[in-house]
Amino acid sequence: MESTIGRLVHREQDMIYNALPRTLQPGYNFGPHCHKNVEVCMMTEGECDIVVDGETITVRTGEMMVIFSHMIHSFHMRSRRPARFLQMHFQPDSFSGVEADVVRDVKFLSYITDEHSAYLLLPFSDRLRDCVERICMEMNSKTEEHCKPLAKIYIYEMVFLLSREISQGYRRIFVIENPLAIKAIQYINDHMEEKIMLSDVAAACHVTARHLSSVFKDITNITVNDYINIAKVDNAMRWLTGTDLTMAEIASKLGFSSTQYFSTVFKRYTRVTPGEYKDMSEKDI
Amino acid sequence: MESTIGRLVHREQDMIYNALPRTLQPGYNFGPHCHKNVEVCMMTEGECDIVVDGETITVRTGEMMVIFSHMIHSFHMRSRRPARFLQMHFQPDSFSGVEADVVRDVKFLSYITDEHSAYLLLPFSDRLRDCVERICMEMNSKTEEHCKPLAKIYIYEMVFLLSREISQGYRRIFVIENPLAIKAIQYINDHMEEKIMLSDVAAACHVTARHLSSVFKDITNITVNDYINIAKVDNAMRWLTGTDLTMAEIASKLGFSSTQYFSTVFKRYTRVTPGEYKDMSEKDI
Repeated sequence: MESTIGRLVHREQDMIYNALPRTLQPGYNFGPHCHKNVEVCMMTEGECDIVVDGETITVRTGEMMVIFSHMIHSFHMRSRRPARFLQMHFQPDSFSGVEADVVRDVKFLSYITDEHSAYLLLPFSDRLRDCVERICMEMNSKTEEHCKPLAKIYIYEMVFLLSREISQGYRRIFVIENPLAIKAIQYINDHMEEKIMLSDVAAACHVTARHLSSVFKDITNITVNDYINIAKVDNAMRWLTGTDLTMAEIASKLGFSSTQYFSTVFKRYTRVTPGEYKDMSEKDI
Repeated sequence: MESTIGRLVHREQDMIYNALPRTLQPGYNFGPHCHKNVEVCMMTEGECDIVVDGETITVRTGEMMVIFSHMIHSFHMRSRRPARFLQMHFQPDSFSGVEADVVRDVKFLSYITDEHSAYLLLPFSDRLRDCVERICMEMNSKTEEHCKPLAKIYIYEMVFLLSREISQGYRRIFVIENPLAIKAIQYINDHMEEKIMLSDVAAACHVTARHLSSVFKDITNITVNDYINIAKVDNAMRWLTGTDLTMAEIASKLGFSSTQYFSTVFKRYTRVTPGEYKDMSEKDI
């Protein structure tokens, strides 16, 4: 039987995708995009608008936004001064095997594991900030020993601290409840490595393409085709920075007819080419 | 398969026996005694002598002492001003199933799991102090949620931070290497709930009582009979505070011929009666 500490050392190697302090300049816009990873934004200075599934939320200093899996979101800097925040992306899979009674007890887990969760907004305590700062520090240390296990330990700490704070104070939680939109998103995510047509998604959902289009747009504020592209671009972003796959390999894996077309779609949603994105990520601009 | 977070919530319920800030007044003496739990003393103010297996170590402000399982130790306040420290006892069993490659990587684990380890003395960083303070806070909170899982998380954090600090800086580690003394201690610990005679221990070690006595005293600085009594008193202390067993039940479980005799032996090693000890522990004097 594997020990807890053994799991912390060896398993879930990629539990945390990234964690770092970021500064956004006035006028900056990014997205819409979506990903499987849960995203945490802890605003330490200034403010930023985050649009999640069509709703605009202003995240202010001292507030923390958690964006759950596969939610379409974008960032918009309307403020005249820069915003500084701690940003982190972590794998929800690490929590998917959790026992039902634990999920019931540990509030934040019930949000992570519920596919209806869209986002969570709450003020953060000094202690929670300290925890997320330690995650960032360990994730970016180049010289110290045991960074990965410590970062994982702090993710568990964050889950418990967040659960405690959620049940104590004010919060806003938004949940997608339309079963057709959820089913369509699920189908798209499950067929990422194929060419997906609107008609395929509609057939899988047992409705007409016209009905699906109309409901999907109402709920998410974007079209099904946009969602398909955004989801593919999201995968591409991960592969560009996290693997050695070439641009041609990624385009082919995601069912694009050519590298050129993949590059065009990528730029439409991110404003940069795949190559520029890879360079930016390496420098963390 | 159980999840990591499930283990943190449910398992190893008694991983931490206690963790609290303590103040010792000038002239205070305690022990000798020993226990299975690993003891951590983090000196935040003043200094204190700790005698471990016959060796006197002065632990100064900013230093941390870890006393491993079954090591006989006592506290002596020679200084004229009070000493403040964070004290913790945790179960080494929580780490006994750890995979060999993890033990190799995580230095502090190799000390916990090696029965030859006696003590470890090292200066502590602010970060390690912060970690131990969080353990104390969670262990003594009466109102917050998720205290026990958080305290366990911080023990894992401490193991990794300590491992990192051990491999970076100065430290002193003392190890018992005499196989006869180790075997005798093991036999005594395994037969705690029986009446143990020197001759039984010698027979189990395949040596004469005279030879065992002489080697044991050389190595540990106390006699075999003292060790047997100290180990029993240590068990009694745990049962007095951690269970509802009566004094008569404890005396009988430990193989004492009468409650009166048990009480006399207890007082010889601790300077208080079992009843007084129970009261003291409840008030944490």
